[in-house]
Amino acid sequence: ANLVLLPGDGIGPEIVAQAKRVLEVIAARFDHEFEYSSHLIGGIAIDQCGDPLPQETIDACKQSDAILLGAVGGPKWDDPSAKTRPEAGLLKIRKELGLFANLRPIKLFDELIDASPLRRDIIEGTDILFFRELTGGIYFGESGRSGSGDTESAYQMMVYSVPEVERIVRLAAKAAKQRDNRLTSVDKANVLEPSRLWRSVAARVMKEEFPEVQYDVVLVDSMAMHLINRPRDFDVVVTGNMFGDILTDEASMLPGSLGMLPSASLGDGGPGLYEPIHGSAPDIAGKGLANPLATILATAMLMRHSLGLNTEAETIEWAVSAVLADGLRTADIARGGDAISTEAMGDAVVAQLT
Amino acid sequence: ANLVLLPGDGIGPEIVAQAKRVLEVIAARFDHEFEYSSHLIGGIAIDQCGDPLPQETIDACKQSDAILLGAVGGPKWDDPSAKTRPEAGLLKIRKELGLFANLRPIKLFDELIDASPLRRDIIEGTDILFFRELTGGIYFGESGRSGSGDTESAYQMMVYSVPEVERIVRLAAKAAKQRDNRLTSVDKANVLEPSRLWRSVAARVMKEEFPEVQYDVVLVDSMAMHLINRPRDFDVVVTGNMFGDILTDEASMLPGSLGMLPSASLGDGGPGLYEPIHGSAPDIAGKGLANPLATILATAMLMRHSLGLNTEAETIEWAVSAVLADGLRTADIARGGDAISTEAMGDAVVAQLT
Ligand SMILES: CC(C)[C@H](C(=O)O)[C@@H](O)C(=O)O
Ligand SMILES: CC(C)[C@H](C(=O)O)[C@@H](O)C(=O)O
Repeated sequence: ANLVLLPGDGIGPEIVAQAKRVLEVIAARFDHEFEYSSHLIGGIAIDQCGDPLPQETIDACKQSDAILLGAVGGPKWDDPSAKTRPEAGLLKIRKELGLFANLRPIKLFDELIDASPLRRDIIEGTDILFFRELTGGIYFGESGRSGSGDTESAYQMMVYSVPEVERIVRLAAKAAKQRDNRLTSVDKANVLEPSRLWRSVAARVMKEEFPEVQYDVVLVDSMAMHLINRPRDFDVVVTGNMFGDILTDEASMLPGSLGMLPSASLGDGGPGLYEPIHGSAPDIAGKGLANPLATILATAMLMRHSLGLNTEAETIEWAVSAVLADGLRTADIARGGDAISTEAMGDAVVAQLT
Repeated sequence: ANLVLLPGDGIGPEIVAQAKRVLEVIAARFDHEFEYSSHLIGGIAIDQCGDPLPQETIDACKQSDAILLGAVGGPKWDDPSAKTRPEAGLLKIRKELGLFANLRPIKLFDELIDASPLRRDIIEGTDILFFRELTGGIYFGESGRSGSGDTESAYQMMVYSVPEVERIVRLAAKAAKQRDNRLTSVDKANVLEPSRLWRSVAARVMKEEFPEVQYDVVLVDSMAMHLINRPRDFDVVVTGNMFGDILTDEASMLPGSLGMLPSASLGDGGPGLYEPIHGSAPDIAGKGLANPLATILATAMLMRHSLGLNTEAETIEWAVSAVLADGLRTADIARGGDAISTEAMGDAVVAQLT
């Protein structure tokens, strides 16, 4: 398989390096051939090419089987008046590759449960898979300004179409069938017209194509509450781009260990994009302090969703559990106890796999 | 003062009745004259007039000094294909009365801290005041459909103008000066044009008019995270209508006792609207189980913000603390212990005040 690595900014290169070691040892153990090429994205791409997503990177991604991304952004490129910013690269790669579905599993590692800001009795057993729509909604709607001076106003349009809703709901419903067979769709249909369309299309798809999946609908404001006081009640959750951005970040706090959470962005057939959900953490970049486990878990998702290699995926996930069970911790999850380096954590996972 | 009561649906009438008793005893004790008139809103208004906000109610509100609302909505009026729904009454009263600022204090009662889903060390000391913009943004933007059948799409516009941002930021900054002198503005300026306008207008207002207030900016997705893992770090938070809807509901879970949280919606000069933030709880309506304390605390906000009666406001808040300290609990906050009725809770607060 042809794998593209996009290390990006901040701690990106360090964590991708460890994940690549894991890919290499998996290839050796299961007798696969993985080819790797690294390309530019984000701030470093702005510095080197003046473009957060150079055409060369897009081309390489399009020809690949899957993409592993580190992280993008940092204070160096944060000037609001800058012509272009690292995040523009992220939005563009999603659109260029048609990555309309962002999958974010929120799962607790038993060993880390005390890191959760929630009480143990609330959080224990939480296991949610989010599907966030990623190439539509208000993120890509028409925007602009009108008037000027004291009366200037700015607008941006939220839009959803029938096929956009159908395809993400179908993906989420299929995933629900592989899990606990329950799907929750989140919208704001009491206020927003695109949410009303979303709600009726989702209901039709579920009724016609997935009558066996238990299906319900929750308003986005209520969902923001439920995630905190009854997270265990959800299995698969599907929602639009903006609501998904907020809710998945909220949910990512529940386990209390951001450094452990991967995500996958999938399209129709083409390569998927895999990444940790945490950011580029410029404050600790280059110091060997970053936790590579989310990126390593992202490679497990890559095995599963882009290469169809389930055993390999489970093996990686098992190895991560094993190093945690051994008590190994990077600083972010050490809670004041002994911490090991990024590379030592990579060593430990690799050791489990060889 | 001329006070309008809008009991609404579900438990609305029961909790407003107890809050009215508190208003009466405050009037007697501090020698005020409060006149009361009750009017229709929500589902009951649909049933009786075919309109969730009859003109008669609007007129009465406009002539009043302040409005106390119970709750609206319920399964009876939930049919998505219905011509009109109870929530339409809420959106309309906000717009008709120009209630552009929704204030939601998120404060813990020490006696109830174990009700929080968050660990005590995270939540202790949390005291946030939200300002949600309430009459603009995507809630009131142009909306519609285009295309049909398989290609139909639906849109709704998010819009913010300079004056809309200025007035809410000013109110929030003034409140910050009375509190811990810190203001956080929440937006999604890395994606949305209205957020970019919001961000630059807010920065200008703060720099020119409130240079002494400590000011920062957080993205909405990050804020959804921070509320869970470091809620103590925020003092006053200001944001737009949609983000405010989601974030204030998320924050309302932090104390773990929704039945204790009031809110105020204020305009420019006209009457303010005060209400508990919980819903109409149709499942327990009419059973004497509802917690009237959020509505009673809403009357304290009414004293403070619409009538300028600070001592009266503090007296009500003190009385609520006192009944909690006495161990009195309605079912929602009893955590399995002894619970008293809605009316008995009203009795207890009234007894503290006489
Ligand atoms: C960086 C930003 C544009 C992006 C988004 O809002 O989609 C990020 O928050 C994410 O969730 O991947
Ligand atoms: C009922 C609904 C329209 C309303 C809103 O979204 O504003 C409610 O959630 C609120 O926060 O008061």
